Amino acid sequence: MRLDELGDWRRTHYACEIRSKLHGTDVTVLGWVYKIRDLGKIRFVVLQDRTGRCQVAVSKDKAEGDVVSKAERLQHQFVIGVKGKVRKSVSRFGADVVPREIRIFNVAKHPLPLDITEAIPAEIDKRLDARIIDLRRDSTQAIFTIRNVVVNAVREFLTQQKYVEVQTPKIIASAAEGGATLFTIDYFGRKAFLAQSPQLYKEELVSNFEKVFEIGPVFRAEKSHTSHHMSEYTSMDVEEAFVNAGDVMGLLEDIVIHALGAVKRQCKHELELLGQKALVAKKPFEVLTYDGVLAELKKAGVAVKWGEDIPTPALRKLGEIHKGFYFIVDWPTASKPFYIQPKAGKTTICEAFDLMCGHVEIASGGTRVHDKDLLNRRIEEQRLDPKSFEFHLKAFDYGIPPHAGFGIGLERFLMCITGKKNIRELILFPRDVERLVP
Amino acid sequence: MRLDELGDWRRTHYACEIRSKLHGTDVTVLGWVYKIRDLGKIRFVVLQDRTGRCQVAVSKDKAEGDVVSKAERLQHQFVIGVKGKVRKSVSRFGADVVPREIRIFNVAKHPLPLDITEAIPAEIDKRLDARIIDLRRDSTQAIFTIRNVVVNAVREFLTQQKYVEVQTPKIIASAAEGGATLFTIDYFGRKAFLAQSPQLYKEELVSNFEKVFEIGPVFRAEKSHTSHHMSEYTSMDVEEAFVNAGDVMGLLEDIVIHALGAVKRQCKHELELLGQKALVAKKPFEVLTYDGVLAELKKAGVAVKWGEDIPTPALRKLGEIHKGFYFIVDWPTASKPFYIQPKAGKTTICEAFDLMCGHVEIASGGTRVHDKDLLNRRIEEQRLDPKSFEFHLKAFDYGIPPHAGFGIGLERFLMCITGKKNIRELILFPRDVERLVP
Repeated sequence: MRLDELGDWRRTHYACEIRSKLHGTDVTVLGWVYKIRDLGKIRFVVLQDRTGRCQVAVSKDKAEGDVVSKAERLQHQFVIGVKGKVRKSVSRFGADVVPREIRIFNVAKHPLPLDITEAIPAEIDKRLDARIIDLRRDSTQAIFTIRNVVVNAVREFLTQQKYVEVQTPKIIASAAEGGATLFTIDYFGRKAFLAQSPQLYKEELVSNFEKVFEIGPVFRAEKSHTSHHMSEYTSMDVEEAFVNAGDVMGLLEDIVIHALGAVKRQCKHELELLGQKALVAKKPFEVLTYDGVLAELKKAGVAVKWGEDIPTPALRKLGEIHKGFYFIVDWPTASKPFYIQPKAGKTTICEAFDLMCGHVEIASGGTRVHDKDLLNRRIEEQRLDPKSFEFHLKAFDYGIPPHAGFGIGLERFLMCITGKKNIRELILFPRDVERLVP
Repeated sequence: MRLDELGDWRRTHYACEIRSKLHGTDVTVLGWVYKIRDLGKIRFVVLQDRTGRCQVAVSKDKAEGDVVSKAERLQHQFVIGVKGKVRKSVSRFGADVVPREIRIFNVAKHPLPLDITEAIPAEIDKRLDARIIDLRRDSTQAIFTIRNVVVNAVREFLTQQKYVEVQTPKIIASAAEGGATLFTIDYFGRKAFLAQSPQLYKEELVSNFEKVFEIGPVFRAEKSHTSHHMSEYTSMDVEEAFVNAGDVMGLLEDIVIHALGAVKRQCKHELELLGQKALVAKKPFEVLTYDGVLAELKKAGVAVKWGEDIPTPALRKLGEIHKGFYFIVDWPTASKPFYIQPKAGKTTICEAFDLMCGHVEIASGGTRVHDKDLLNRRIEEQRLDPKSFEFHLKAFDYGIPPHAGFGIGLERFLMCITGKKNIRELILFPRDVERLVP
């Protein structure tokens, strides 16, 4: 089909504005064909744009020029423009656009792989394969509206509290946190890595900016075996000088509460679309110790060996007992990265914390080591190669202050807010590289 | 040296607050030793934190406990805490802290590789090698304050105009824009790439969100031969449905003017530190055509072959003639990527534009191709493999609207604002991977 030119057509009104109070107004609406209903003498076309929908009513007797033939060529998801006059009507929109001219800017191949009206449910894989259409569905749009509200709320909160936003390198020279889960990259013939977190950089930056945060992509070379893991996701990282784990746990509580408040206020409609109640949280969050968690799990028939990370099935069990937000503290030093400060007087446990919501781990953090001698010992204890940390360690020669921080997994947090069980729903294009995995 | 614990010490006041009006107040200040002056009976220590500096005055006769011995152990860039009382003084701060207790949280190795007071100038390479200290210098801090003001101003402007912020994948399955300048990555045994721009994704997203932007890292595997290029930098990308190049050029003007206004209002002190006047711009920016530029360059003795990109030395010459912001339009179709729309009626030139400031290219964009047939032809013309674009092309089956957009190179823009000639100054850690280049 020959496509019409956009030419000088520009939108005068969004679809959501085409209501009875505009009766008599000349408008130009632009968008996608959502639905078509032909009643013989009149053809109704529901047009969708980013704000919602409106109805175009083509009266086959009265319409001028090629309006009727254009209207008859339309199919679902065609991209169109309509110039016409708004007329009050008994439709659920309260008004129709009576077109003077219709332009078809682009077509869509039929049959469509997905029903945009959501009348026919679709599995996540099918939806992701047709993500371009899936992202036009109301419930998918709702997810990304919530995602934006959360990111903006976190950024706003931290900016107001005078944290400085930073952008640290994603291509890094050394395998910073052990190396097993890093993607390797060919850097002009040499081996470099993709950053699995801004951890080392943000620790260095507290010695200049004191309070920093970064919201950006991180990369982990773990095959996405579970519905909770992705090899690329968005991390919201915070680091602060002259504080310890307890202080930043308080900050983290404030951030969570601020973000949940923003969602509750700004996303009523979106939560309704997703069939979710607004998640709420109150300070202080419950604090469990690692030992306490192991005891609870043992009672529930799940054995976890002391010193190890708590595996996913055990966390699921724990989530049955603890529904809301809670911290797990006093982790075994050996189970956490080298940069976590061991507890004074009891070095087998350390000043790390995880923030949980039910069975989902949302954030983790802790007091960091700032003493270079201790850092060197911790690197040795964890059997890492001090050479890989040469440049990071050098920074510790020049006045790194005591500090603490954490990273929040944005999509994990969104799982709890949206009630979505598969993390891939919360990322715009999780499918692109998934195809690559052998 | 045995380090003191942070313990329950928390900052009560920032250094910039320690002025005469606090006379008599008990304070805790935390920061870095900036300067030490010993007058025999009294030892002055200037303490710096993220907000500025204040003076600590240790009277060797009167000080209690180990205050004197602690004060005598201090060296530049040691990390310290001071608890004491503020006392009016004749110092340039108008007040001193008279310490009751001093804690040394960390040391710094001497001699320092860099003079933090900037009394001794340092070359960029030396500064980047000691970036951790360099970032504590006033003029370096000024750069990153300006950087944040620019990023926040752009985000704020776009958010107010209802553009939706998105985060698109950085690991991509296909070499999207040709492939020559992409980093390759080992993705679980298969070859993937690092995104050199969010171009294809943002084009797909205009069919769902209509107005999108992304501020994030992009990666180009071009060795940084010039002071204008980096293999990793921050791109501010905008894409919009139902508009053309002319519309987004107007938007780009607005963004630039808004950002410059924010810098002028919020960064007086920082510009002064950098010895820069606030950059200003007025709408409309001058518009040059590619042909016009070639004619101007020819007159100035610089030959550029029609159809080619304008090389850096030619741009330098052009920047001598045109000092402020200006667009270059009507580029040869062959010199621009396949997704740029050829001009109607004159397909050898296309609807692309570059935004220049003097000799620095800050942004480029254009009207995009939305017709799948044309897109296929353009891919063939540029001798690219349609198979690499299989998934992107599939999106064009399902209602991609007419659209246009651009990408702004954040650091390039900052070069113009800060007057810095080397782009590496404008990135927190450009040095990390530079070491890798053979």
